[in-house]
Amino acid sequence: MRTSQYLLSTQKETPADAEVVSHQLMLRAGMVRKLASGLYTWLPSGLRVLNKVADIVRQEMNKAGAIEMLMPVVQPADLWQESGRWDEYGPELLRVKDRHNRDFVLGPTHEEVITSLVKNEISSYKQLPINLYQIQTKFRDEVRPRFGIMRGREFTMKDAYSFHTSDESLQQTYQGMFQAYCNIFERLGLEFRPVIADSGSIGGAVSHEFHVLAESGEDAIAFSDSSDYAANVEMAEAIAPVTEQVPAMSVKTQVATPDVKTIQQVCSHFNITADKTVKTIVVLGAENEKGQQDLVALVLRGDHSLNNIKAEKLAEVYAPLTMATDAQILEKINCEVGSIGPIGLPIPIIVDRSAAHLTDFVCGANETGSHLTGVNWDKDIADYQIADIRNIEAGDPSPDGQGTIEIKRGIEVGHIFQLGEKYSSAMGCGVLNEQGKHQILTMGCYGIGVSRIVAAAIEQNHDKYGIIWPDAIAPFKVALIPMNMHKSHRIQQVAESLYEQLVSAGIEVLFDDRKERPGVMFNDMELIGIPHTIVIGERNLDENKVEYKNRRSGEKQLVEIDNVLSLVADC
Amino acid sequence: MRTSQYLLSTQKETPADAEVVSHQLMLRAGMVRKLASGLYTWLPSGLRVLNKVADIVRQEMNKAGAIEMLMPVVQPADLWQESGRWDEYGPELLRVKDRHNRDFVLGPTHEEVITSLVKNEISSYKQLPINLYQIQTKFRDEVRPRFGIMRGREFTMKDAYSFHTSDESLQQTYQGMFQAYCNIFERLGLEFRPVIADSGSIGGAVSHEFHVLAESGEDAIAFSDSSDYAANVEMAEAIAPVTEQVPAMSVKTQVATPDVKTIQQVCSHFNITADKTVKTIVVLGAENEKGQQDLVALVLRGDHSLNNIKAEKLAEVYAPLTMATDAQILEKINCEVGSIGPIGLPIPIIVDRSAAHLTDFVCGANETGSHLTGVNWDKDIADYQIADIRNIEAGDPSPDGQGTIEIKRGIEVGHIFQLGEKYSSAMGCGVLNEQGKHQILTMGCYGIGVSRIVAAAIEQNHDKYGIIWPDAIAPFKVALIPMNMHKSHRIQQVAESLYEQLVSAGIEVLFDDRKERPGVMFNDMELIGIPHTIVIGERNLDENKVEYKNRRSGEKQLVEIDNVLSLVADC
Repeated sequence: MRTSQYLLSTQKETPADAEVVSHQLMLRAGMVRKLASGLYTWLPSGLRVLNKVADIVRQEMNKAGAIEMLMPVVQPADLWQESGRWDEYGPELLRVKDRHNRDFVLGPTHEEVITSLVKNEISSYKQLPINLYQIQTKFRDEVRPRFGIMRGREFTMKDAYSFHTSDESLQQTYQGMFQAYCNIFERLGLEFRPVIADSGSIGGAVSHEFHVLAESGEDAIAFSDSSDYAANVEMAEAIAPVTEQVPAMSVKTQVATPDVKTIQQVCSHFNITADKTVKTIVVLGAENEKGQQDLVALVLRGDHSLNNIKAEKLAEVYAPLTMATDAQILEKINCEVGSIGPIGLPIPIIVDRSAAHLTDFVCGANETGSHLTGVNWDKDIADYQIADIRNIEAGDPSPDGQGTIEIKRGIEVGHIFQLGEKYSSAMGCGVLNEQGKHQILTMGCYGIGVSRIVAAAIEQNHDKYGIIWPDAIAPFKVALIPMNMHKSHRIQQVAESLYEQLVSAGIEVLFDDRKERPGVMFNDMELIGIPHTIVIGERNLDENKVEYKNRRSGEKQLVEIDNVLSLVADC
Repeated sequence: MRTSQYLLSTQKETPADAEVVSHQLMLRAGMVRKLASGLYTWLPSGLRVLNKVADIVRQEMNKAGAIEMLMPVVQPADLWQESGRWDEYGPELLRVKDRHNRDFVLGPTHEEVITSLVKNEISSYKQLPINLYQIQTKFRDEVRPRFGIMRGREFTMKDAYSFHTSDESLQQTYQGMFQAYCNIFERLGLEFRPVIADSGSIGGAVSHEFHVLAESGEDAIAFSDSSDYAANVEMAEAIAPVTEQVPAMSVKTQVATPDVKTIQQVCSHFNITADKTVKTIVVLGAENEKGQQDLVALVLRGDHSLNNIKAEKLAEVYAPLTMATDAQILEKINCEVGSIGPIGLPIPIIVDRSAAHLTDFVCGANETGSHLTGVNWDKDIADYQIADIRNIEAGDPSPDGQGTIEIKRGIEVGHIFQLGEKYSSAMGCGVLNEQGKHQILTMGCYGIGVSRIVAAAIEQNHDKYGIIWPDAIAPFKVALIPMNMHKSHRIQQVAESLYEQLVSAGIEVLFDDRKERPGVMFNDMELIGIPHTIVIGERNLDENKVEYKNRRSGEKQLVEIDNVLSLVADC
């Protein structure tokens, strides 16, 4: 491709409204353009990357035995009413009426369509298992689209759905997809982690997310420094300290602590570290049979943070997690929030595993302006439960017993679920089994955010000059930069000859044949992030050489003109 | 691909609601499934065909210098308001509101989006011409979707848009697209015709349609038997007969003709053929300055039919073409419709070229129950105009002066337009030209109905057993049918070995490894339309042979097992 016959559309200025680096660079490097909030046009360079990502996904899905098909973007509402999601799904589901006033939705996912299809097309267990997928345009009407294509409204997704007559079969396909996803992200050249995940609103039990690691990632991932263990911090189990419990030595003592309300103030008042204190968080409890809600105390070590998702899963706690108001606490406990503690509390008490491991700790005395020191579980308080309710932290022991936890940030680009019968049961999707009886199928579903991967790849691979594409998804493999070609017949000749050689060899090359200053060309090719650059200049030509530069390492070397093709082909 | 691990979804029964053969066969052969009116899911076999069509289109577009990009399906309404189409476009434009109550449309075409993009991205004549295209999902809310994917609501289209600073440049790109389209349809293996077309509501002057020829086609195409001339019958020029005019011999004579009203009755009454008569059609005239409408007479040879589109283009005629009522005619002419003729008519008279070529003809006398014989132009009537207002017919001379016209039916699968400044002018899309002045661009646009081609290919290529795919777009090249494999180790061994050989050679093969009777397998593979079949049976194996069958020709031959690969590879 010649730049003179291409839509390069690079920009020098960083667009003011682009918050994250991938969004900034996708705009500056001419990958996408905003059409409206959350809606982006893919310019030629961006589409080349998007298509390469999609091709790798497709190849690995096919290799794993999945079968490609294509469902419509526009779906009839009745299927969503059948599954129940017409009511469950919020305003992110864009609902439309056609000219005959019939209800439709723009598909954010396709569980309903595929379940309805399989129900009609597959009648016998002999046709199973089957794993069907598509790579397709989806729409989700985000309340606040942001970060460019990272959280857009229209996006490209690979979604696969598998159908089974047994859990064993589902688990086998799930494992196959897990492996296919690892293959995909390895081939894409991205640093990634599969992590144990919460299956959220899609339903089902077992699920894994696939994260591209990047400092700017929205999610925190906990993983072991010595094993394969990795989980979204939301989900990662926080075990009790593996050290032995220090024997209790002290006697409970009440101390006046006016103006001491926060853990920080407790620490400085008593001259101790936060891991010798506990904090007590009061939340609304689950409704009882009469619809009444009690309060519940959640007790954590002073240096730990509450994990809302874990807390919400407790039977005693109301979901969504709701903090008790100061007034509710005052009424029930007759004490201000800053002095609450577990001793003598008239409400159920749930203690985190690490807090339960403490001895001789400091806590609020349930008397305004007063704390207790030398407190010990069991001795000072009998009625409490122990549960895992905190966020795992760097330095914690890995829950699989191997190594220590590190925390990295990640961008979720894939998610696989063992869905179970949520949709097949609601929609009556079953087959005749080996015994000749009708049996509801169990399902898996497997998504990859194809367009989001493009942004995630940039978040992970960039420097101050621009994007650094992994070779597998670069819009072009080679940039060919002739310096002042329009003034030198010799440079033009070598450039045209090298261009022809590279194109003939099937190498994707962007030939910068514009009448631009060399600096402009260098900057553009670095911004676009082409992995390999060949620079043709007068001085090196005297020695029959050109300059090769590697975008990622910055390595430069002089290469004989005759060796350019083999050098680049081997990269 | 093994059928046992595939979603074949063939059906024996012809679905009752499928009117055309392509729709019937796409359902029966498991190519598509209906999700809702005009919305279809592409099953695996159908998607394989669709993707092959798209790939050929993409390759030829790239070869012609067009650059691929991708625009959103969902478009903001303000662009459509800017171009004026928000008001012009009827209910086929599906309008939606997002969660913030902002107006959007599901894109039926993308002129607005691309014009807005080019306006922002391209500032200098040096970056032109440029031809940008996408292969993308489109939506048109047809009032009565029918014929399966032939006239669906959601469909796949290739749409390209070119931008120029001069008409010469536009014409050059237009010619390039014309040639690229010819290449595409040739590579698809379809019999097609590029035809001169009416540019309809998209606007612009020059346009060509590309039709796949098929008896079931909705359009009639006139083409020369001895030149490249081809035009939609709507548009094809009907020239006067090339034979010399017969000298006038007769004198005008009035004849009483009670009960003679139609041309057929005139012919039998006077014992002449229809080409010796004229018929006079009275329509509403264009409004004058005062908003009044006169009547206008359109005179055709008795055996010819009026072409509404040509008539509407006349300055004297009201558009849309509207027949005068019997009452209007009686009031103005004082004569019943069956006896109207051009002699002495008190309204403007427009005579078709062929009617004007007649001598000694018969026509109505403008007196109820009366006709004239021996009528001649100029002698009997002085005040009339001549124009081309009839439909061209088989046997007419070709308007390019070469050969005779034949009429065939076609399915429109492509349309190219020289759009001009319709959108660029409305949206202010221009560049600085060589003189440094801002200049509005001129545009071309080039569409191909990618999904429609799949149906059109079937309309042209099928028999009573099913689809006969051209090799280039067949879902699989080879069907491998082992007879009773599950009872014969030898057959299984040969089948597995051939399958492995074919797959290794990169040949797309569908291996029917189901436990089905041979007849079921043959029927399915013929229905799906796979071009080449290899049948493995016990008897032929005794001679180390298998049977090859060609789907299109029906030719069968016995082939040495060792020669199967080379035979199939060379097909």
